[in-house]
Amino acid sequence: MVQQMLGVKINIQGVRPMELGSTIRPGLVQLRVLDIDRSVNFYTNILGLIYVGHTSDGRAMLKGYDEFDHHSITLRQSDSAGLDFVAFKVANNEILEKMMKETLGFGYRVTEIPANTDQPGFGKRYSFQISTGHVLQIFSEVELAEKGPMIKNPDIWVTPPHGMRAQRMDHLLLYGPNIAEAESFCKWVLGMYVPEVCNNPDGSRLGAWITGSNKPHDIAFVEFPESGRMHHIGFYLNDWTEIGNAADWIAINHLKLDIGPTRHAITRGQSIYFWEPSGIRIEVYAGGYTAYPDHPQRVWDASQIGRGLFYYSGELIPSFFENVT
Amino acid sequence: MVQQMLGVKINIQGVRPMELGSTIRPGLVQLRVLDIDRSVNFYTNILGLIYVGHTSDGRAMLKGYDEFDHHSITLRQSDSAGLDFVAFKVANNEILEKMMKETLGFGYRVTEIPANTDQPGFGKRYSFQISTGHVLQIFSEVELAEKGPMIKNPDIWVTPPHGMRAQRMDHLLLYGPNIAEAESFCKWVLGMYVPEVCNNPDGSRLGAWITGSNKPHDIAFVEFPESGRMHHIGFYLNDWTEIGNAADWIAINHLKLDIGPTRHAITRGQSIYFWEPSGIRIEVYAGGYTAYPDHPQRVWDASQIGRGLFYYSGELIPSFFENVT
Amino acid sequence: MVQQMLGVKINIQGVRPMELGSTIRPGLVQLRVLDIDRSVNFYTNILGLIYVGHTSDGRAMLKGYDEFDHHSITLRQSDSAGLDFVAFKVANNEILEKMMKETLGFGYRVTEIPANTDQPGFGKRYSFQISTGHVLQIFSEVELAEKGPMIKNPDIWVTPPHGMRAQRMDHLLLYGPNIAEAESFCKWVLGMYVPEVCNNPDGSRLGAWITGSNKPHDIAFVEFPESGRMHHIGFYLNDWTEIGNAADWIAINHLKLDIGPTRHAITRGQSIYFWEPSGIRIEVYAGGYTAYPDHPQRVWDASQIGRGLFYYSGELIPSFFENVT
Amino acid sequence: MVQQMLGVKINIQGVRPMELGSTIRPGLVQLRVLDIDRSVNFYTNILGLIYVGHTSDGRAMLKGYDEFDHHSITLRQSDSAGLDFVAFKVANNEILEKMMKETLGFGYRVTEIPANTDQPGFGKRYSFQISTGHVLQIFSEVELAEKGPMIKNPDIWVTPPHGMRAQRMDHLLLYGPNIAEAESFCKWVLGMYVPEVCNNPDGSRLGAWITGSNKPHDIAFVEFPESGRMHHIGFYLNDWTEIGNAADWIAINHLKLDIGPTRHAITRGQSIYFWEPSGIRIEVYAGGYTAYPDHPQRVWDASQIGRGLFYYSGELIPSFFENVT
Repeated sequence: MVQQMLGVKINIQGVRPMELGSTIRPGLVQLRVLDIDRSVNFYTNILGLIYVGHTSDGRAMLKGYDEFDHHSITLRQSDSAGLDFVAFKVANNEILEKMMKETLGFGYRVTEIPANTDQPGFGKRYSFQISTGHVLQIFSEVELAEKGPMIKNPDIWVTPPHGMRAQRMDHLLLYGPNIAEAESFCKWVLGMYVPEVCNNPDGSRLGAWITGSNKPHDIAFVEFPESGRMHHIGFYLNDWTEIGNAADWIAINHLKLDIGPTRHAITRGQSIYFWEPSGIRIEVYAGGYTAYPDHPQRVWDASQIGRGLFYYSGELIPSFFENVT
Repeated sequence: MVQQMLGVKINIQGVRPMELGSTIRPGLVQLRVLDIDRSVNFYTNILGLIYVGHTSDGRAMLKGYDEFDHHSITLRQSDSAGLDFVAFKVANNEILEKMMKETLGFGYRVTEIPANTDQPGFGKRYSFQISTGHVLQIFSEVELAEKGPMIKNPDIWVTPPHGMRAQRMDHLLLYGPNIAEAESFCKWVLGMYVPEVCNNPDGSRLGAWITGSNKPHDIAFVEFPESGRMHHIGFYLNDWTEIGNAADWIAINHLKLDIGPTRHAITRGQSIYFWEPSGIRIEVYAGGYTAYPDHPQRVWDASQIGRGLFYYSGELIPSFFENVT
Repeated sequence: MVQQMLGVKINIQGVRPMELGSTIRPGLVQLRVLDIDRSVNFYTNILGLIYVGHTSDGRAMLKGYDEFDHHSITLRQSDSAGLDFVAFKVANNEILEKMMKETLGFGYRVTEIPANTDQPGFGKRYSFQISTGHVLQIFSEVELAEKGPMIKNPDIWVTPPHGMRAQRMDHLLLYGPNIAEAESFCKWVLGMYVPEVCNNPDGSRLGAWITGSNKPHDIAFVEFPESGRMHHIGFYLNDWTEIGNAADWIAINHLKLDIGPTRHAITRGQSIYFWEPSGIRIEVYAGGYTAYPDHPQRVWDASQIGRGLFYYSGELIPSFFENVT
Repeated sequence: MVQQMLGVKINIQGVRPMELGSTIRPGLVQLRVLDIDRSVNFYTNILGLIYVGHTSDGRAMLKGYDEFDHHSITLRQSDSAGLDFVAFKVANNEILEKMMKETLGFGYRVTEIPANTDQPGFGKRYSFQISTGHVLQIFSEVELAEKGPMIKNPDIWVTPPHGMRAQRMDHLLLYGPNIAEAESFCKWVLGMYVPEVCNNPDGSRLGAWITGSNKPHDIAFVEFPESGRMHHIGFYLNDWTEIGNAADWIAINHLKLDIGPTRHAITRGQSIYFWEPSGIRIEVYAGGYTAYPDHPQRVWDASQIGRGLFYYSGELIPSFFENVT
């Protein structure tokens, strides 16, 4: 069994197979949307991403104005909205291959996706399904975007930030079963750490916020009976003032607000949740503490999760544990 | 009848008896609180007002750090929380006397409160009850506060803003019957104007936002069957960032949030509502458009009031029309 | 002599001929620019004004996105950059006529400019030159702009704020001789008041900040030997965050910065000065206290003017008293 | 020679001896100040640090309100102000020992400072002087502060942020000779990377911004003929609004401003430089891009350094290359 095998590894070796710093960031997310033209309009003109191009099979590629990589979001038309996969960029090819082997060793089946096939500009990716039912991928190479940040005597931006002024894709919150295993996988195979957790009264995990960087989370999991669900995808804004601007854009464009503007005590991020045209929950997010792997882990009791998630009201909003795509 | 008498005045004279600019601002509010020590602690250490002193009968006097007048808030211990009165500062003594006569002419009974009696530092006030059941007062003279803003080569503040950093008492929203008459009184006797209104389908007023300045409202009324109710008292913060700071103070001090942070489309103000220890609804407020008396009046349909009040969700929160003190 | 005559008026009558509230705001400024196409590009695409149209003689009309009036800025091509005139909107036609007569009585020659001649959408204006050599005008009627703020169930903006996101033309600082007379004119004829002044050691005025509203200044004067000079025209931004955004636009567009970002202790405004393409000094301005006519006048010693103008460095920047158009 | 030896290492091995992620952050800085009581007052009451205590020999220990470690700043009274040393926290004890050996291998003499001697709460440190004449240290263990951030169901702060509201010590900029070697040392021995550099026309380094995290710099070097100089120590503020607040505190406390508020194009940080009471240049800093080790290095030409450092004016301020302690 995977968990046992993992436990053995930890107990015997005392160190994780992959070091901190192995996983750089979530670098690519493919979303299923119901109407791709309407979605491209939303993600570019309202959320403020940059349109990169369409793939030959009609998917749309997008990126934040402050992202260097070829693209970070792919939209695919489908009958049901949701997450196809999230792919992590890892430090280099050597680590990619080692991580693939550790994934196999963790008990997951791995598929190789050759370079420049379904995702233009991207090198080889390894794809696998984790305990929560989500498809994760890893890759180490991607071309630089044409419209990325300047490198030579750089200005702070090239294309004026517009709409909600999203800078980059930031993180995902995924819902599914057995998040304890997913957390272990992220730590021991992806080389990430866990700045903040929420525990049930019996000590089991209700939620885990996981990062490979100084961001408080690159990915998070909440325990949920149904497999492979996405709670939200988060995009980064500059500060609380931009959170206010995003809220104005929600109102003016008659988008449906879910929750906020508010602050999470968990991660300390300032946040709004709302629904994009296909019914995917989007978070625009700012702030958040500077996480360090040597900091004590912050621990929440499930009884305090309302305050942890919605710091201002302190009350759990039931829809937060429902309405996942 | 008052309304008829007023109509006659308007039709015949074509001009209002009191000119724009006659009423400067809401300058003094007396609130009933349940536990005066606890309230003084809240208003000074959390909201950020400055403590001025106690009256000989045990009421507490407070002011914002950016207010020049002796005090702007008086707290009185009582068994029921709520509003005793709101007093407007008018331009000068001549206008005060004329306004008193116009108030009588409007049909209201006027009481004179001599200088330096119940409100140290304040000159003579005239007091009267309007159609909505609220006690309004007018005065033209008040001493300068000892801890007011600097005048000679001034720094921007003397006492560091602290807590929620409330700069000043800003406005009140009052609930009561026959707000059409209250609106007329504010316009024709107090010399104010009405930048924004909300109308019922039959054309009657549901709400009116009224000002004597470039602020979008100095006082507002919402039609309500019960007499003399206060919806909230609003304090001014510098900007949306300070709204966020106030929300943090709400959370950290375990105060009960009512609504927000959000923006009103009405007034455009950015806002949080929460409950102070006695159960009075406090608003901390920032932004708001620069109102001018020659600007067209903004008009809301009652069907759109949810969006007008809570721009981001666009949905009316029922408690907004309940829970008034 | 004008000053004596004025003094007589004040001493005898004890009240100003025009009441506070008579002048609503500076409503129209005509600027001379060196290259009108380049200027239109700057004022619309970088400063963020809205293009209204060209007059039949090739001048360009512009407005802020949050201004109701037909236009507030007219650009006229010329060989020398600078100010043609600033026109104030007054409360109504009756006040306009009375103010014209008081202007004559003050000793100034008045010219009438009929409605809808050189300034489309504007009613009759009266024009006159004051002691400092500047041309001031007054008018009471102007058509509403097509692209003005919404009135019916209004959104907070219609056209997304862009570039530096200037909301409105806010104020001017004019340099010229005998500002004491100009100040008197603004007070006694325009019905404005003077929240803040700077005095020379001999008690004479070095500068005066004058308003007809709750803004800390609608117009300001600094004593200067040359006649009719404009130091800057100021446009209003939402807050300090927008000041930062404007600074970014200055840098990215390689505009020449003059001073800032900084705060004035005088008015408390947060500010940047920079040069538009014709060499006119532009200020983008946010904040500023809420002025009230009953507040004590803030008084600066000339020796402290460096701190008054540039609060952070506290040092006078010589160019501030030079380089006026 | 060290550089040659290093070059050999790189060419032969192709990998750095210490991996990315080995160095967590600059964790302790000891400053020499002229009057320790006055300095403690400045760092706690104005900059907003928290007082931790005095050492037995009279040095003062301080920390930011958002720092977990025992202290991050030590102040030592001296006749000359400046930097004693900067110490980096590394990932664990194993890495500490390996790094010590690599430092020896790099050609530097290493001194061991036993745990809990001169710096209460700190484990063993290794100390060495680098090419620029500065003393660097490394350590892997430090006790948690009593007044650190909450861990169990945490609020976002415990002690209200006050004064300039500095969150943490952020970075240093050091001036000295042979920064190319210092840069190599930081990369190959400390396992850091170099998001941004400035090159002279001959290709040699003028400046290097170096980090071990997602911050754009943990430490930076500028080439300078004199050895061991400190340009500034930087403290982190939340955002541009806090930069404005810090500037207000500078003005109100009559501190001497050096430069700003401004933005660096290099690091993109928003910044003010000013002088604390002993003449040490302090930077309060906000923003900055999220650095990633796989991002292209940003490269500045020395001719553009004015714009790189002072983005808004675009002009080099000579004092920036002078006045170093």
